[in-house]
Amino acid sequence: MFTHQKALQFTSKPDAPDPAFAMKLQEVLGGKWGEMTVALQYLYQGWNTRLPGKYKDMLMAIGTEELSHVEMLVQMIDQLLDKPAPMSADDTTGSTQASEFGAQNPQHTIVNGGSAYPHDSNGVPWSGAFVTASGNLMADFTLNVTAEMQGRLQVARLFHMTDDRGVKELIRFLVTRDHMHQMQWLSAIEELKADGLDGMPTPEAFPLEEEFDEFSHTFIQASDGEAATEGSWASGPAPDGRGDFRTALIQATGEWPELAPGDPRLYGTNPLQETKGLIDKAKDALS
Amino acid sequence: MFTHQKALQFTSKPDAPDPAFAMKLQEVLGGKWGEMTVALQYLYQGWNTRLPGKYKDMLMAIGTEELSHVEMLVQMIDQLLDKPAPMSADDTTGSTQASEFGAQNPQHTIVNGGSAYPHDSNGVPWSGAFVTASGNLMADFTLNVTAEMQGRLQVARLFHMTDDRGVKELIRFLVTRDHMHQMQWLSAIEELKADGLDGMPTPEAFPLEEEFDEFSHTFIQASDGEAATEGSWASGPAPDGRGDFRTALIQATGEWPELAPGDPRLYGTNPLQETKGLIDKAKDALS
Amino acid sequence: MFTHQKALQFTSKPDAPDPAFAMKLQEVLGGKWGEMTVALQYLYQGWNTRLPGKYKDMLMAIGTEELSHVEMLVQMIDQLLDKPAPMSADDTTGSTQASEFGAQNPQHTIVNGGSAYPHDSNGVPWSGAFVTASGNLMADFTLNVTAEMQGRLQVARLFHMTDDRGVKELIRFLVTRDHMHQMQWLSAIEELKADGLDGMPTPEAFPLEEEFDEFSHTFIQASDGEAATEGSWASGPAPDGRGDFRTALIQATGEWPELAPGDPRLYGTNPLQETKGLIDKAKDALS
Amino acid sequence: MFTHQKALQFTSKPDAPDPAFAMKLQEVLGGKWGEMTVALQYLYQGWNTRLPGKYKDMLMAIGTEELSHVEMLVQMIDQLLDKPAPMSADDTTGSTQASEFGAQNPQHTIVNGGSAYPHDSNGVPWSGAFVTASGNLMADFTLNVTAEMQGRLQVARLFHMTDDRGVKELIRFLVTRDHMHQMQWLSAIEELKADGLDGMPTPEAFPLEEEFDEFSHTFIQASDGEAATEGSWASGPAPDGRGDFRTALIQATGEWPELAPGDPRLYGTNPLQETKGLIDKAKDALS
Amino acid sequence: MFTHQKALQFTSKPDAPDPAFAMKLQEVLGGKWGEMTVALQYLYQGWNTRLPGKYKDMLMAIGTEELSHVEMLVQMIDQLLDKPAPMSADDTTGSTQASEFGAQNPQHTIVNGGSAYPHDSNGVPWSGAFVTASGNLMADFTLNVTAEMQGRLQVARLFHMTDDRGVKELIRFLVTRDHMHQMQWLSAIEELKADGLDGMPTPEAFPLEEEFDEFSHTFIQASDGEAATEGSWASGPAPDGRGDFRTALIQATGEWPELAPGDPRLYGTNPLQETKGLIDKAKDALS
Amino acid sequence: MFTHQKALQFTSKPDAPDPAFAMKLQEVLGGKWGEMTVALQYLYQGWNTRLPGKYKDMLMAIGTEELSHVEMLVQMIDQLLDKPAPMSADDTTGSTQASEFGAQNPQHTIVNGGSAYPHDSNGVPWSGAFVTASGNLMADFTLNVTAEMQGRLQVARLFHMTDDRGVKELIRFLVTRDHMHQMQWLSAIEELKADGLDGMPTPEAFPLEEEFDEFSHTFIQASDGEAATEGSWASGPAPDGRGDFRTALIQATGEWPELAPGDPRLYGTNPLQETKGLIDKAKDALS
Repeated sequence: MFTHQKALQFTSKPDAPDPAFAMKLQEVLGGKWGEMTVALQYLYQGWNTRLPGKYKDMLMAIGTEELSHVEMLVQMIDQLLDKPAPMSADDTTGSTQASEFGAQNPQHTIVNGGSAYPHDSNGVPWSGAFVTASGNLMADFTLNVTAEMQGRLQVARLFHMTDDRGVKELIRFLVTRDHMHQMQWLSAIEELKADGLDGMPTPEAFPLEEEFDEFSHTFIQASDGEAATEGSWASGPAPDGRGDFRTALIQATGEWPELAPGDPRLYGTNPLQETKGLIDKAKDALS
Repeated sequence: MFTHQKALQFTSKPDAPDPAFAMKLQEVLGGKWGEMTVALQYLYQGWNTRLPGKYKDMLMAIGTEELSHVEMLVQMIDQLLDKPAPMSADDTTGSTQASEFGAQNPQHTIVNGGSAYPHDSNGVPWSGAFVTASGNLMADFTLNVTAEMQGRLQVARLFHMTDDRGVKELIRFLVTRDHMHQMQWLSAIEELKADGLDGMPTPEAFPLEEEFDEFSHTFIQASDGEAATEGSWASGPAPDGRGDFRTALIQATGEWPELAPGDPRLYGTNPLQETKGLIDKAKDALS
Repeated sequence: MFTHQKALQFTSKPDAPDPAFAMKLQEVLGGKWGEMTVALQYLYQGWNTRLPGKYKDMLMAIGTEELSHVEMLVQMIDQLLDKPAPMSADDTTGSTQASEFGAQNPQHTIVNGGSAYPHDSNGVPWSGAFVTASGNLMADFTLNVTAEMQGRLQVARLFHMTDDRGVKELIRFLVTRDHMHQMQWLSAIEELKADGLDGMPTPEAFPLEEEFDEFSHTFIQASDGEAATEGSWASGPAPDGRGDFRTALIQATGEWPELAPGDPRLYGTNPLQETKGLIDKAKDALS
Repeated sequence: MFTHQKALQFTSKPDAPDPAFAMKLQEVLGGKWGEMTVALQYLYQGWNTRLPGKYKDMLMAIGTEELSHVEMLVQMIDQLLDKPAPMSADDTTGSTQASEFGAQNPQHTIVNGGSAYPHDSNGVPWSGAFVTASGNLMADFTLNVTAEMQGRLQVARLFHMTDDRGVKELIRFLVTRDHMHQMQWLSAIEELKADGLDGMPTPEAFPLEEEFDEFSHTFIQASDGEAATEGSWASGPAPDGRGDFRTALIQATGEWPELAPGDPRLYGTNPLQETKGLIDKAKDALS
Repeated sequence: MFTHQKALQFTSKPDAPDPAFAMKLQEVLGGKWGEMTVALQYLYQGWNTRLPGKYKDMLMAIGTEELSHVEMLVQMIDQLLDKPAPMSADDTTGSTQASEFGAQNPQHTIVNGGSAYPHDSNGVPWSGAFVTASGNLMADFTLNVTAEMQGRLQVARLFHMTDDRGVKELIRFLVTRDHMHQMQWLSAIEELKADGLDGMPTPEAFPLEEEFDEFSHTFIQASDGEAATEGSWASGPAPDGRGDFRTALIQATGEWPELAPGDPRLYGTNPLQETKGLIDKAKDALS
Repeated sequence: MFTHQKALQFTSKPDAPDPAFAMKLQEVLGGKWGEMTVALQYLYQGWNTRLPGKYKDMLMAIGTEELSHVEMLVQMIDQLLDKPAPMSADDTTGSTQASEFGAQNPQHTIVNGGSAYPHDSNGVPWSGAFVTASGNLMADFTLNVTAEMQGRLQVARLFHMTDDRGVKELIRFLVTRDHMHQMQWLSAIEELKADGLDGMPTPEAFPLEEEFDEFSHTFIQASDGEAATEGSWASGPAPDGRGDFRTALIQATGEWPELAPGDPRLYGTNPLQETKGLIDKAKDALS
């Protein structure tokens, strides 16, 4: 169960409205790697894991914190939209000239009346498909590491796209928490291994004897970029401790399948002989 | 530039058509973590990286291999659809009883005439939003690890949902390559660090002095699950080697922002006093 | 800022797993009118309104409560998925026969490993486009009334689609809260009027003298269903107290516009004369 | 059955092309609350209602009228695109400087050759998910009220974003019809009640004795904004005439559910003891 | 401007409810190639073409007719849903056993209360992206031919998936109109040529001297399927009358581009030397 | 199976970075009619056709070539993004002034770090729904003709939106290949007919005696644009050689269906009498 208090976890006031930057900031609110995604992803992972205890509790804690980040970003975007850009050629009341910083999101004014929404920096709606909660914590925590890396990368880039001290302060807070959360997931991955809950390759429980040995440690070269085989992934010990990497050129070992002629009732294009027969059959079937 | 040969990289023939399993198999072809995603993600990452050499060449190799996996899955689904399920109550020609294995995808027959398409197991279209190529290889390789974990997890699950030896053989091939590819990305991550190209936290180049020290190693407890602080992410050294984890209860340090009244021309609900004045202003503006 | 406690606001234990009903229940979790929508819609409306005080505070309260409903639904779906349905024809371990209750969502097992996700009952992802926070509370509260009506309608329907007492108990709770929340929004609408913040037509601040009198109270009959004019919307006083309803047959008062020939560089199909000239111009433009 | 005449229901000629405003105007054509939505929503509601007579006939009338509004908006956007903006830095033929009014939609020229399409002001396609026709007229008419409010709000905002007299005339027409249509739906709601077809809470036919009394009139405070309880929704008579509002702090009355360990064939992360046993079981199952 | 009459263009009554077939029939209502698509596509093409006269008038006629087909399909689906399938295991009132014909769409009951909606046979919403109106009639009429082919193919397939005489009658009507409409577009294409409005290649107005001669009639062989060069597209006269087809193996004539190092403020992975320098620059930029 | 070589099929170097044109060029990479669509559409058609031989081999050849076009476009966009536009008001390092050429895609920098992605020119993700592979080659080859027309139209338009010689060279190559591919599909259509595999109307195998004669060659006039009947589609021989075109005014020959009252458990709005009875029944059903 959730409760809410109106004081924010952290906040800062922008120096001035900036509707063009508000459009950009939508990316880390409602984009694929934005705060909406991590908040809901961690909560769904926490609710869904069938393993009680520290991992579940930790997921609920961080998911709830990320909800508070969603809140902070919405509030910041709202303040950046305190004054809309000039509305028409004759309008001299806008806070900034539209052309100075680049384009603005027309929905910020027409649809939202000067406020944020769960869409990305191009106005494409956030999608539930962004959330992954697979039930396997090793696979999901690895996703969470990259989520915090992609997120930190995006706010680091935004840091250089504004000169507003208040906005920068919020970005610095987000950069810092993304730093912490990367560490958190990396530690949790090691702990999953130490607790014997999963390992490499993930899922470790799948019986390795079902795998094809000739393919399990072989880097397959399918392009002509020769440097590809200079990496540690092409020779030497593999990180699973189960063998050494090998290299092979890609090879076609399978046949091109002959597909059976289609059911005549599907009216696909069929081998000539068959087609004529099938048409007759289809006609018969109708009578 | 790509070239194609008709022989498949690997293939196996299903024992019998099975349209219900064909529907399920769409997930690893056209779902968020399916072969379409990894093929295109690795290719975009390879094309886009501004770093020439082994990483770029390797990305092109593996992306091209994954295209060949897309091909194998399409061919398998096509063969599973060699005979559609019974089309109506009176139809006794179908290869299998619809109710035996569960539902089938109506678009497999109505739209595709008995063949595969780039959609997931519920018929939702594959989306370009599934592809991430951020330009930062550390963030992207970490995503690639999880992509191979999620993918291996899904095919491992599908392994238990069919008794067809031919289908299982293809699944075993995919499980094996997902094993190899997990190893490949893990090795590449270590190599990025060894080459000094990036590190923890990612991106490492962002100046750490801009971070807020009190938040960079602090696990924030926002839920009441007490076990959350028992993990290694709540105390002890952090994996970045830059300090020890701390724990703190979530605290509201920011104020609830007072938003400025909206522009009257946006007709939002405004503070009462202002509203009346704004209406007059709006009317004036029209005259 | 949000905090979370693990005890649920309300809960009940299902009598038995039922993966087919779990698929149906996704509608009120991740469908257009599900709990994800109302939780996020009320929170965005609360964050975004530029009017401080009782409306803003109330929005934050109800939005936070709805988050707790999201949590309860996820937990219920997870328990309904405690045992998956039989996985293949030979599998006798499933909790229920797939064919008994209808189809199941293949992603519940393949993707989520037996758990819920923010998608609707057909597996289509939840969309940020479902959230509306226009900045105008009258328009938004009216949307909220219908959201609670559509939501109550859907859970009332689901009430008859299961015989499980535990599931029914949760549904009864949701039906009850949807009852309360309808009342809450209806009261808030009256209060907005009483406070003079908006009225009919909404937005009331737009100057009525800009409207065309002949169209502002006229029911326009564009179909031949004669009963249409028997309703109170076709004659008698209108609810805005600004006049009486009238009825008129739809009439074409405007001309079919003559569009200017297209720019030759867009290669659209143009009037014959112009086309030939335009081709020459386009060629000239290239030299 | 529909018939069409080329004369428009109402029209006006823009003073001059304005591709930037054409982009904005797409919102009320192909956005969530645009004319595409109301036209199709009213028609689907009319076709689908199982109640013959005045409501059904009225829905067909207004749905058909809205189709004529779609037509008018398309024609207006087409004329605003009569001349595209300058195409490149050297191009001096464009009707307007791109930077004057803000950004333009690149698809207006590249894809449509200078014309409108069913997408919103950011170029996101219109979605069938925008249409709701639930079969319950009370719930749907309430949605229709808000649709006309959101629509009127958006055109009222657009009114201030252009100085073109012709465009403003069309907007004034749309503002007027949205006024009328709000009145129409409000009257119809009252008539549904008077006819005894439904009431509050909607749907009224669901047996109230199945509700939990302690939750049916209780405003639950889940945030710390104290003003929330000052509203009429927190005390005093509720609009359903079935009791008085009460207020209570949110309380956790349910337990955190213990989820059963997952099926080993789904390879989720399971309780440690079980995991080891489950791995063995999974391996056995394969032999 | 549109008007509507309640009598349908054509109709037939189904013998009995059949919710499973109702789900399938959604494909030709709200799928990519369904009636929603052709109705709106033809209307947008008609509204948007800048060429007055017979083509524009014809587009308005056929678009309006297709609207009447949308109406017929909705009415048919509604009648197929007259009785829902059994709602739960204990329910013996349903019109048909769910398992007999395959799965049903849960939204047909939960969301729509027993009626149709603008979604496809898997419940994925219709998208505005399905509509193309490019402004070039040759390109669009060719699309319209395929739209009628894909549509006729789908209803022809559905013809074999039901034994209901009433449903089959509607399908036969649709098959017939799709026949006519294919002929209509083919004739219109010839007329566009005869009128000199466009030709091959389309758009014909683009100056051919800008093309590369060595590529304009060359079939490029990029796969090893040898039969590919046996077709008329590999040798002999091309249909544009501008030369003969040739065949060539695909050849790489371009270089692999060296991308410039990225801007340090984007934190991408850069060439090693540069990276170090760039980090310093980035730090400087912050001070 | 695919292999890749790093040399490009064709390439050219842009004169200078141009992030605004990079945004526009996304349309022909990741838009509905872009290279992603044709590459994947031809490959799926090739994999899926059940007819072995020249058509299948040709589809694999052209699909593979289009993959190489995807690669070229990505590389071009990457080079156009070699320098981002100015990032903020104070930034004087950008390669171009944002306002000169129009808006830029914020995701090009924030998300992709200066590179391309599979989205259209408005940043909307590419969708698997863009691909059609129906199993019927006549219907699909006709779609392929229009795909090459729409594609050629779009690059022809883009040709006029840049002054960069290198970019123009790539566009000229694409225009040329779209020319060739139009010819290729037109030849293949004729060959399908000559081979007796399908004809007009498509699919030809559907028994024409099931059609309604009075509707199979009748142009139905549903609008009042009189020129509509002046075309060759309204009189004279039809291209199927099966009769002459006729013209008729649209006529309502079907009745408005009376829908049965809804199941009371769906709580739709029902005929008054029935409603009262149904409520009682619903209540009984619950006891």
